[in-house]
Amino acid sequence: MKPLREETIAVTDQDLLLVFDETVTRARVDGWLRYLESAGTPTQMYRLGASHVLPVSGVDNADLLAAAADLPLPTRRVTRGGEAWLGRREIRPAGTEVSLGPATIGDGSVAVIAGPCAVETPEQMLATAELVAGHGAVGLRGGVFKPRTSPHSFQGLGFSGLELLVEARKRTGLPFVTEVVDAEHVKRLAEVVDGFQIGARNMQNFALLSAVGQSGLPVVLKRGFGCTVEETLAAGEYLLLEGNDQVVLCERGIRTFEPSSRFTLDLTAVALWKQRTHLPVIVDPSHSGGRPELVEPLSLAAIAAGADALLIDVHVRPEEALCDAKQALRPEQFAGLMTRLAGAAAGLGRSLQKR
Amino acid sequence: MKPLREETIAVTDQDLLLVFDETVTRARVDGWLRYLESAGTPTQMYRLGASHVLPVSGVDNADLLAAAADLPLPTRRVTRGGEAWLGRREIRPAGTEVSLGPATIGDGSVAVIAGPCAVETPEQMLATAELVAGHGAVGLRGGVFKPRTSPHSFQGLGFSGLELLVEARKRTGLPFVTEVVDAEHVKRLAEVVDGFQIGARNMQNFALLSAVGQSGLPVVLKRGFGCTVEETLAAGEYLLLEGNDQVVLCERGIRTFEPSSRFTLDLTAVALWKQRTHLPVIVDPSHSGGRPELVEPLSLAAIAAGADALLIDVHVRPEEALCDAKQALRPEQFAGLMTRLAGAAAGLGRSLQKR
Amino acid sequence: MKPLREETIAVTDQDLLLVFDETVTRARVDGWLRYLESAGTPTQMYRLGASHVLPVSGVDNADLLAAAADLPLPTRRVTRGGEAWLGRREIRPAGTEVSLGPATIGDGSVAVIAGPCAVETPEQMLATAELVAGHGAVGLRGGVFKPRTSPHSFQGLGFSGLELLVEARKRTGLPFVTEVVDAEHVKRLAEVVDGFQIGARNMQNFALLSAVGQSGLPVVLKRGFGCTVEETLAAGEYLLLEGNDQVVLCERGIRTFEPSSRFTLDLTAVALWKQRTHLPVIVDPSHSGGRPELVEPLSLAAIAAGADALLIDVHVRPEEALCDAKQALRPEQFAGLMTRLAGAAAGLGRSLQKR
Amino acid sequence: MKPLREETIAVTDQDLLLVFDETVTRARVDGWLRYLESAGTPTQMYRLGASHVLPVSGVDNADLLAAAADLPLPTRRVTRGGEAWLGRREIRPAGTEVSLGPATIGDGSVAVIAGPCAVETPEQMLATAELVAGHGAVGLRGGVFKPRTSPHSFQGLGFSGLELLVEARKRTGLPFVTEVVDAEHVKRLAEVVDGFQIGARNMQNFALLSAVGQSGLPVVLKRGFGCTVEETLAAGEYLLLEGNDQVVLCERGIRTFEPSSRFTLDLTAVALWKQRTHLPVIVDPSHSGGRPELVEPLSLAAIAAGADALLIDVHVRPEEALCDAKQALRPEQFAGLMTRLAGAAAGLGRSLQKR
Repeated sequence: MKPLREETIAVTDQDLLLVFDETVTRARVDGWLRYLESAGTPTQMYRLGASHVLPVSGVDNADLLAAAADLPLPTRRVTRGGEAWLGRREIRPAGTEVSLGPATIGDGSVAVIAGPCAVETPEQMLATAELVAGHGAVGLRGGVFKPRTSPHSFQGLGFSGLELLVEARKRTGLPFVTEVVDAEHVKRLAEVVDGFQIGARNMQNFALLSAVGQSGLPVVLKRGFGCTVEETLAAGEYLLLEGNDQVVLCERGIRTFEPSSRFTLDLTAVALWKQRTHLPVIVDPSHSGGRPELVEPLSLAAIAAGADALLIDVHVRPEEALCDAKQALRPEQFAGLMTRLAGAAAGLGRSLQKR
Repeated sequence: MKPLREETIAVTDQDLLLVFDETVTRARVDGWLRYLESAGTPTQMYRLGASHVLPVSGVDNADLLAAAADLPLPTRRVTRGGEAWLGRREIRPAGTEVSLGPATIGDGSVAVIAGPCAVETPEQMLATAELVAGHGAVGLRGGVFKPRTSPHSFQGLGFSGLELLVEARKRTGLPFVTEVVDAEHVKRLAEVVDGFQIGARNMQNFALLSAVGQSGLPVVLKRGFGCTVEETLAAGEYLLLEGNDQVVLCERGIRTFEPSSRFTLDLTAVALWKQRTHLPVIVDPSHSGGRPELVEPLSLAAIAAGADALLIDVHVRPEEALCDAKQALRPEQFAGLMTRLAGAAAGLGRSLQKR
Repeated sequence: MKPLREETIAVTDQDLLLVFDETVTRARVDGWLRYLESAGTPTQMYRLGASHVLPVSGVDNADLLAAAADLPLPTRRVTRGGEAWLGRREIRPAGTEVSLGPATIGDGSVAVIAGPCAVETPEQMLATAELVAGHGAVGLRGGVFKPRTSPHSFQGLGFSGLELLVEARKRTGLPFVTEVVDAEHVKRLAEVVDGFQIGARNMQNFALLSAVGQSGLPVVLKRGFGCTVEETLAAGEYLLLEGNDQVVLCERGIRTFEPSSRFTLDLTAVALWKQRTHLPVIVDPSHSGGRPELVEPLSLAAIAAGADALLIDVHVRPEEALCDAKQALRPEQFAGLMTRLAGAAAGLGRSLQKR
Repeated sequence: MKPLREETIAVTDQDLLLVFDETVTRARVDGWLRYLESAGTPTQMYRLGASHVLPVSGVDNADLLAAAADLPLPTRRVTRGGEAWLGRREIRPAGTEVSLGPATIGDGSVAVIAGPCAVETPEQMLATAELVAGHGAVGLRGGVFKPRTSPHSFQGLGFSGLELLVEARKRTGLPFVTEVVDAEHVKRLAEVVDGFQIGARNMQNFALLSAVGQSGLPVVLKRGFGCTVEETLAAGEYLLLEGNDQVVLCERGIRTFEPSSRFTLDLTAVALWKQRTHLPVIVDPSHSGGRPELVEPLSLAAIAAGADALLIDVHVRPEEALCDAKQALRPEQFAGLMTRLAGAAAGLGRSLQKR
């Protein structure tokens, strides 16, 4: 991408973000930092992948143009506004690809991540993993720390459950994501997981966001069920500011007055995120609807609305599940879903991601 | 369809609906009415299209079986429950087809009804009608009575606007639907319209529902933005009870805390209605999102969730619209939408309805 | 109140409402109408009680001042904005008093209107009326037309139930309000009722609002459970525009995600209305909470938030009620409530209204 | 309180909680633990203040009665149900008093805790503290760690701000509460604070709840703005299970479709909590309404609905506030509020708490 011509970096009275090409080294951007400090408008350098970004405000045009003669030109100049800075679509118009082990979220294909809500037993985890791998999932899901509304409910197997996920990955070759609920667990988990999931109840647990951001690992950030589209972007910004651009936003339903489903899936949010941020979007139709018969129509609708990926609860024997049994797909339901998804993806000019 | 065998009409302690085949005449069903009255459990006969339906409760099994020897057997026996009786999917498992002039909603194809939010001028209405007809719409929309939040806003052209819809129909051959806001207008409108629309604010205006039901004309019933999936089914029941089965339920977004879109489109409702009622479902992505850039993703998602039809705001010059200007598609946007819809429909094993 | 001095009627580029003193006759205000028409900015005269109000826009200051030399000066000049014009607090800062028979809503006292949700039998209606009269209610409530979600539910006694309300009024001396659901019923009901109630489901049934407004009778306008504070003001405007200022806004709970109560009572709305409109406010804690044990705390909270009146469901034998049985207060509960209300009102510098 | 008679501990098929008098030592309750384990129904001992509580299920009646001959009798037997066990009103019908330094929340009086949203400067904090102390507040509030939606907003002064709260306490004698956002901060904060506040965004941050519970200090637990009445009780249970009964539930508004206020204050929740839990309830009218003119009516309504305490934002110069400036009361507004509160409390048979 060509640098902007000189006149385009002229700063008006609006605040700007200067985005530099990946080839511009940190050392060269440092020149801008020094210059802006000397000009009485000190700022801070941010990183998005290999690019550097500088917020600028209150600088005189002529001075900026003069400085630009000796300093690297920014590739892109973005007006600052709203909660998201680094997450804004304009910063990276082509979109971000998130690498979850060998899988990719955000490359245009439809990626399906599936597995049990909670890891329960070796038999359950391994059988479910092989099932979903056999039908075309490219990633596994499974919770070992379950943030439960009541302290009297099953809280997950904890670290011991992690071994089952590792074993499932070994047998199937699929990467896995699992939920992290405590900033203190991040380092230990980061040694084995392929990606983190931050649950809806923790979307605004900013201490946890920072810790997970620092891990550098991919993270699925679930929208809080009482939080807005813009607040979710702002929460993602906490991850991006740690220099981690491997962030996937997850729509999983919001709280509304409607009692027929567990939550109301907000696919308008998916469409808005695809327009407003470069981060890819995943949808969880299982926890949203809370009923297996809703998973297929909501999955199809999600990819039609633009979702890059789906997060699906599957259980080889849902009637024995310890957690959220009611919503998991049975094996034959999952198989049917994958077939229907392949058709729909084709109709949308996309395809199911293959391993 | 074969009548149920004798033993299946045995009544337990639950209330039932006995559904008779279309070939069973009213006179023969009258025999059941007389019998049930004589048995001390009088009931009322309902009609769904050409079928008759009898609610039954508190009848002794043996007596019912004995009576059935002389009386026509019901085709179908449905447990009563929930707000909807005549609208329940089990009453007519194959679904209802609604005929809007030459167009059909509910036959498996995707029907697009499009036009301006409000009829404003001859130029606007006719140009828009020809535009949407040219790109494959099978029906027209256009409001002449606009129920506006504020009495100080433009309220529509009233009956004089109706002539423009009639002229547009004449030129394009497309049937039209228009909103009715007053029970007193029903008869006059019924002489010219192809179908009625009942707006979200009037979904529980039961006097209006009855009047429209009695017209026998097709009706698009919009879900109230504060009303539930089940309440919408119950409102539809008011229309069905008038003997009118030409009812289309419309999802057009509900009120939630999310401020980024005008309403939150509830596609879970679409999936639930397709499972719970035999009535076809239409989605209005224009009024829901309130932004033209949301219309395409929400339209694609709606048909993927199972919607039978779409109701789209189109305006030849949105910047001149007197009402809801912001959400109308421009001509080129509508053309692009129809192309994308055709692809998506194919991927879902469906097709766009043609004239 | 003294007329504004000349310079205060100067119009800037904002739209204004000119409010005239009650002593300024229609004939004299007509002079302004003629003047404005001749100046190329024709407008329309509105009436609020005995005052006249003129919206003005786009008039040149100097011309207006010159005209004012020969025309009556407005008492008050209000900037137009928002949905409400005639309902704005600034139009009548002292507030509006609504006369319901001998009772008054909006005079600073706390008025309690009570009775059964639905009129069912002579015994029930008369016993309940005497009970609530005995404990200090100043008005009766009782529904004869019940707008029910399902057409299969009890719809009320209709006009025959009206006689029971009339008899209850005769025996107790209390005026009554009853819900109207059909514009065609307004004239017949207006002959006997003391005041109308427009239900939440009909708040935006604009044909009904106009018909009720034209009756000139007091009306309790219930907020739609999916409608906003401002939309309720706009609905009230439909009544005011008919020249009827006897309007009471009713908060009765809105739809939210919270399932523990039937609706969520929005007392912030009460506080906002008291600041934004001159119309008095009544609260219905019975339908909001849907539980008798919530009625007392919500009633106390309502008057503390500024409500002028309360609308309470009472039933002499709630277990026999045909409609909304669960929320009605028993006789001893109502007696306790009135005692507690009297204490709370005193603490707020107010008092319970007496007959 | 007298122990229940023998027959009342008979267990049916429902699960129970056995609550022991404070005089029954842990050693004696241990006898029940051993007995139940030997009977094949092992359980766990919980503590609520000085009382012990045992959940029991699946025990045979006769065996239990026989065992009770040698073991201490429970004072109270409560059927288990819902998310809350230790928090249920029936466990401690007289209610819990929470001691915040010299102040008490839950003793029937109305306790007012006031101060700035965020601690900003020595002048601001100390002047505000002296102001609120002078007008009758019994506790201070002030945030040093602000959980902000956007990482680009002011995040609070951190530990350095704590010194200002300590100094304010020293000068006024008032205890203070401050928000904790990170489990790692709990120990350090516990050395100086009088009480913790857990913010709405962290209500379901269960790692934080456990850490704060273990501190043994009083805690104000704010309801998540997307969380239900029952979920808040369940979150409180996480604190209670750590043996800490010094918990105050805080209603601070929920997310709804209504845009006129920042959140919708749910006073129905206050009434429900007062009926369902023994924990005291505080209301935050400042963050709920988001406008200073709403603070007085909402405060009055809150205590009328049964709230034990109020949490009020006050700022000596709101126009200079770095955070949530718009909602803080000015000095004269706070003075007026305290006067009105005293009157209302008297009318409710209560009084403002004095130091």
